[in-house]
Amino acid sequence: MHISSREQALALDATDPLAAFKGRFRLPPGITYLVGHSLGPVSESAIARLNAHAQGAWAVDIVGAWNNAGWIDLPHQLGARIAALIGVKPDSVIVCDSVSVNLFKLAAAALPLSKGPKVIRLEADEFPTDKYIAERLADLIGVPCEVVAPEAGVDALSKGGVFIRSAVNYRTSELANIEKVEEAARASGALVIWDLSHATGLIDLDLAAKGGQLAVGCTYKYLNGGPGAPAFLYATKALCEQMATPLPGWLGHRTPFDFDPRYQPAEGITRFLAGTPPILALAALEGALDLFEEVDLSVCHRKAMALGDLCLSYADELGLSTLSPPAGQRRGGHISLQHEKGYEIVQALAERGRKADFRAPETIRLGFSPLFLSYADVWDTMEDLAAILNQRLWDRPHFAKRGKVT
Amino acid sequence: MHISSREQALALDATDPLAAFKGRFRLPPGITYLVGHSLGPVSESAIARLNAHAQGAWAVDIVGAWNNAGWIDLPHQLGARIAALIGVKPDSVIVCDSVSVNLFKLAAAALPLSKGPKVIRLEADEFPTDKYIAERLADLIGVPCEVVAPEAGVDALSKGGVFIRSAVNYRTSELANIEKVEEAARASGALVIWDLSHATGLIDLDLAAKGGQLAVGCTYKYLNGGPGAPAFLYATKALCEQMATPLPGWLGHRTPFDFDPRYQPAEGITRFLAGTPPILALAALEGALDLFEEVDLSVCHRKAMALGDLCLSYADELGLSTLSPPAGQRRGGHISLQHEKGYEIVQALAERGRKADFRAPETIRLGFSPLFLSYADVWDTMEDLAAILNQRLWDRPHFAKRGKVT
Repeated sequence: MHISSREQALALDATDPLAAFKGRFRLPPGITYLVGHSLGPVSESAIARLNAHAQGAWAVDIVGAWNNAGWIDLPHQLGARIAALIGVKPDSVIVCDSVSVNLFKLAAAALPLSKGPKVIRLEADEFPTDKYIAERLADLIGVPCEVVAPEAGVDALSKGGVFIRSAVNYRTSELANIEKVEEAARASGALVIWDLSHATGLIDLDLAAKGGQLAVGCTYKYLNGGPGAPAFLYATKALCEQMATPLPGWLGHRTPFDFDPRYQPAEGITRFLAGTPPILALAALEGALDLFEEVDLSVCHRKAMALGDLCLSYADELGLSTLSPPAGQRRGGHISLQHEKGYEIVQALAERGRKADFRAPETIRLGFSPLFLSYADVWDTMEDLAAILNQRLWDRPHFAKRGKVT
Repeated sequence: MHISSREQALALDATDPLAAFKGRFRLPPGITYLVGHSLGPVSESAIARLNAHAQGAWAVDIVGAWNNAGWIDLPHQLGARIAALIGVKPDSVIVCDSVSVNLFKLAAAALPLSKGPKVIRLEADEFPTDKYIAERLADLIGVPCEVVAPEAGVDALSKGGVFIRSAVNYRTSELANIEKVEEAARASGALVIWDLSHATGLIDLDLAAKGGQLAVGCTYKYLNGGPGAPAFLYATKALCEQMATPLPGWLGHRTPFDFDPRYQPAEGITRFLAGTPPILALAALEGALDLFEEVDLSVCHRKAMALGDLCLSYADELGLSTLSPPAGQRRGGHISLQHEKGYEIVQALAERGRKADFRAPETIRLGFSPLFLSYADVWDTMEDLAAILNQRLWDRPHFAKRGKVT
């Protein structure tokens, strides 16, 4: 649907089943927050759970809270909730460590199970950290790491090996064709590790139905889990039982409290736990996930697409080009608009309370988190963007470049 | 000094320069907490910092807090504070990930720099997780991992390679002779990685002066950083510049915000950062470390030894044997007493509000955190222990074994 007036935006807000969620976040007054693709805001329930674990469990039971407050089970419990959001079995996801560390674990563990020559592949426009991890792992264990052209990814899958792929590209917001990639992988015996960082909590992924067997992802973007909130790791039970983690910590042991001198992997996904996870960071994530218990993710996904479409149609009228899939197409939750004065425009938007992010050399990145953004928020942002462009506000001296923008 | 009466204990408390710190913790009423070697209790300052970062920075600036609230520098800032406690240069410590993950990083990075045949060695009674990590890393990169007898560790150092050693043994509390080990390592070009988990925040380590060049350690024991608080990693500048992390995440990149497709390690210790660290867990640790700004660690160390001596002398009178170095000798902050009814005794102590831990088959482990335990606390605990032993309380039916004790 094409939205062409503020009234139309307000009408959509009036019937939006997600409208009430905005009140569940602590958002700074006067701010339209369009950086949810980078770090989501804090929810009341995140604060509540943080307090319950820190001032409650930790203060009351101290070490006893590992059992009494269920800390020991948090990585599994939160994993099961994330499993529901990405569309996989509840006992196939665990929350721990960072995306980088989890990607290292899965890639090292999956390689021996992949068919064909042992090799790790990714596309050239993949998230840089994923590439760093893949290249270093390959170097460490003495296999090649092949960086292929973005358009050659699916073809390269015919040669087997391990393939690492973002479900949503961090730069363009392009949404991968998961079914097609998995189909090609199945044909050759290649194993695909999906990086779901820019997808989880917004895209209705339905990963298992599409053939996805392995994934990692972060929880501080659309899940609003908090700065540096622990990441997740997904592996099907069938693969899990054949995989050995390269980071066998005590919590991934079959009987961690026996202090067994010999490592014996726990059943299933638990073996991918390494050291003791940061419980307070998990506590905030637990509260953030409480909100998702009340959310129909398909509604969430549709609203994010509608907000993005509004942005893209308006941007098109303004003559702005985009790196992202055009309006009406499936994509991730953010949109990258291009302008040579991108940096100055992001500053000018910020002065109007519209927080977006800038990525060199000229990308204005806007994120459309459907839980706390309204149609009117996006409409008003685009109106401000139009005013900034029309008045060429970047010609004003105080928009001279000043340091790093994150 | 031998303490032989409650009055004597009270007299020591009356002049104890650390006595006031007990009031800075939220301790459950009626509890003597002797499990600080496992998880330290929450301090008021930990809660204050947690609130400041969650309800303050995150709520107010959201993603902007990475700069405005200094989140980006927290791993370094907390590292510098821990550096002061272990006796190394401020810019040689970083806080991130878990002990397991950090040990993996350091061992992989140190191996190419060690002299002699490439091999990872540890002693047979080393902390099991350290062994799991070492063995798996060795297997992954195709070098041997040698587990040597505890008494053969220093001799094995003459062959070079990487040697992993706890400064304080988790089971016995034996304190390593760091100087002697480092001297042997220097002679052969071996590199020693110290696991400081059971030492940091209690032992006045003075690590650099003793020749220590590489270490990892946890922050949730005597530092009271919170459940699963992030660990630290120490490496001298000279070694750092020659080392490559096996886990090159974006925050260890020279210019993380450039999204450089090619990994280039940051200067110094920063290269050992991997993914985004869990800021809320770091926040609690920050508050916990605030207390240590006011503490003279040598005073802390002496008091811990005195509390342990009190325990050991009393235990000796009770005819209890111990795995730990006897009274008057240097050791870590915990003491392992042996009794075939150890499990039941720990239960009986708990019924009297004395929280200790039990380790199968018959170890009663008591931790002597000097910031929140008084001489009278320890005296009274030993009196209770004496009563339990004299009355053979474990013969009562309700002390029948019931499930896991942590």
